[in-house]
Amino acid sequence: MTGKIITISRQFGSGGRTIGKLAAEKLGLRCYDREIISRIAMDSGLAEDYVSEASEHTEQGGLFATLGEADYMGSSNRLTIWSTQCKVLKEIAAKGPCIIVGRCADYVLRDEYDLLKVFLYADADVRAERIVNEYGESDVNPKKRLKDKDKRRKAYYEIYTDQRYGDPLNYDLCLNTGTFGIEGCADLIADLYEKQLKK
Amino acid sequence: MTGKIITISRQFGSGGRTIGKLAAEKLGLRCYDREIISRIAMDSGLAEDYVSEASEHTEQGGLFATLGEADYMGSSNRLTIWSTQCKVLKEIAAKGPCIIVGRCADYVLRDEYDLLKVFLYADADVRAERIVNEYGESDVNPKKRLKDKDKRRKAYYEIYTDQRYGDPLNYDLCLNTGTFGIEGCADLIADLYEKQLKK
Repeated sequence: MTGKIITISRQFGSGGRTIGKLAAEKLGLRCYDREIISRIAMDSGLAEDYVSEASEHTEQGGLFATLGEADYMGSSNRLTIWSTQCKVLKEIAAKGPCIIVGRCADYVLRDEYDLLKVFLYADADVRAERIVNEYGESDVNPKKRLKDKDKRRKAYYEIYTDQRYGDPLNYDLCLNTGTFGIEGCADLIADLYEKQLKK
Repeated sequence: MTGKIITISRQFGSGGRTIGKLAAEKLGLRCYDREIISRIAMDSGLAEDYVSEASEHTEQGGLFATLGEADYMGSSNRLTIWSTQCKVLKEIAAKGPCIIVGRCADYVLRDEYDLLKVFLYADADVRAERIVNEYGESDVNPKKRLKDKDKRRKAYYEIYTDQRYGDPLNYDLCLNTGTFGIEGCADLIADLYEKQLKK
């Protein structure tokens, strides 16, 4: 136990990354996000883009579905990525209080660390508008992009964690970012964290 | 639109009723809870105990499953209760800002009123301890009591609302009452409500 860590799980397009960064600034904590991917890549010897892509994908039919030979390398790499991810998350957590966005940190760190586990989500309309503003237009309709990403994140989370994605019971706090706004959610998380530290 | 209303949905044993009452005191609002049952009973001519019991039950197989003759009266009453419940909730909401605990108010009022929709939950251990402290021991193991009640609430909510019970997307805010405590949750809800009013 090294002090409370905030983990942020989030739906694609809900603004989780920005909220994590803002809350970290308010609290004077470090926020880990893309950096975790770089570290996994470095530790595993796999390319960063490959890690980024693979760490939200699973094979059709689940991680341990019967594998054709062509799939073997991909699956082996995915297991390497997952075990490296667990190691990297624990190294980060061991350094003390911080904010970690994504990467199933809520699950990986749940038994060994004191966590404030947050889930951020929003209505599809709000998220569709946000991804177009943040990531630009694409050939694919924004609602379709959301649907694909939601499906992948859900599959990834559920296969590795054995918990239901987006089930409030996995978290201390779930916030609709469409209701409270990006700044509002960051304030709320920072306030709650400070209140809990005072106890 | 008559001003913001807080709806509190809650898992059995999570302390939702107490939190609603406390938040209402802090905000100087009226909190509607058991009183809704009394009003439904009065309006429908059915006994209060019957309404209370029936309003968290559904027939095996769903509300509109094939009904035997013996079931017919029960089903007809349940539909009466539901339509009276919708009417009573809308009458309450029309009076202005307040807190409403349970009764699918989040769903019934969603299109016509400005709501802050809250879902309260907690781990089974926390809830089991709470129901023994609040409602006393019973012949039935507290975990079994929770499981039965969870199942009923879920079935009731999902049959009448066509939404998934406990899905964060139905709410603005979901709080684990085991993490923040009864008083802590009431403070948080009251603070958020006041902040939203200032916007």
